[in-house]
Amino acid sequence: MKILVVGASGTIGKAVVNELQGDDAEIVQASRNSSEVKVDITSTESIQKMFEEVGKIDALVCATGAAHFGLVEEMTPEQNLVSVNSKLLGQINLVLLGLEYIRDKGSITLTTGILMDDPLVRAASSAMANGGVRAFVKSAAIELPRGIRINSVSPNIVEESIDKYGSLFVGAEPVKSKSVALAFKKSILGAQTGQSYNVY
Amino acid sequence: MKILVVGASGTIGKAVVNELQGDDAEIVQASRNSSEVKVDITSTESIQKMFEEVGKIDALVCATGAAHFGLVEEMTPEQNLVSVNSKLLGQINLVLLGLEYIRDKGSITLTTGILMDDPLVRAASSAMANGGVRAFVKSAAIELPRGIRINSVSPNIVEESIDKYGSLFVGAEPVKSKSVALAFKKSILGAQTGQSYNVY
Repeated sequence: MKILVVGASGTIGKAVVNELQGDDAEIVQASRNSSEVKVDITSTESIQKMFEEVGKIDALVCATGAAHFGLVEEMTPEQNLVSVNSKLLGQINLVLLGLEYIRDKGSITLTTGILMDDPLVRAASSAMANGGVRAFVKSAAIELPRGIRINSVSPNIVEESIDKYGSLFVGAEPVKSKSVALAFKKSILGAQTGQSYNVY
Repeated sequence: MKILVVGASGTIGKAVVNELQGDDAEIVQASRNSSEVKVDITSTESIQKMFEEVGKIDALVCATGAAHFGLVEEMTPEQNLVSVNSKLLGQINLVLLGLEYIRDKGSITLTTGILMDDPLVRAASSAMANGGVRAFVKSAAIELPRGIRINSVSPNIVEESIDKYGSLFVGAEPVKSKSVALAFKKSILGAQTGQSYNVY
């Protein structure tokens, strides 16, 4: 089984790669700067180039996506585009451009996040992207061809990110990145489709 | 009470205007071509111009937003942008650019749709936009300034649209546009915030 992990160098990406490595899978790691395969998910050209380089795969995993954090009252349309172009469209364009590279009965797993369900101040743009990805996944699942499945994983903040984002996630109880990685594993190796696996 | 209805010339917009007219409100109707005020919600310049023209309001209502309909397997990133730029960002940019024009304790009501909850083939792009708007609304509600509230209305297909869209909405039981209009009224005249009023 050949698995492409986009965002492999991030905290969750690393945990996903680590969790899958025991399963006799060929894992292709992609990220913006730090992996064997380079990809910028905000660029359709970069995504297209990545798939041409990697070739046919059984599972597409995206464990990355940037978002803008800031008050709605101060947010400009341009700032909101950070979330649109990365966490929302970056992931959806991976699906649109990658579908033909995914083998029959393969799978797609995208990342959302708790902020769409349990809002925080300054996180409306991120929530928007998360909610868009979740709804796309639920809808795409009923029509993807060749038995291909699609799910999303919605993590809470992970323990490793508390130093960086803890001040934003007031009162949140962080989860283990291994728990998030297991949700990805369930999506990749399981049989469900159209699901949002909430790790919280 | 001064209410700006964007998309006032559409099926749902007309029903909203009709429902509100008995309430001694000043209703300003805006739409792309057929209303006293012209606005193209895919253009931030056009939105900005509209607010400068209309001035201070008590309630902002958006009853419009275009989306692309097509199979995920055949969808291009460019086609998906129709939904992003209109139903998703068109509505969110109304919030970002309109907030300063909304009076203290005013309200914002946006439109999503049943396709995010009850998917149909060819509707993944629309579902994405709907889910994004719903999550943005839920998150923005906890931080909007000056007592301003925000909700969204998620309509099923309305009876008047069966001829146009009925072939897409297989097995759907259409709702009355008056029921949808009442959900908008509840958002505008009620006290709740962060809600998705599902008319189905």
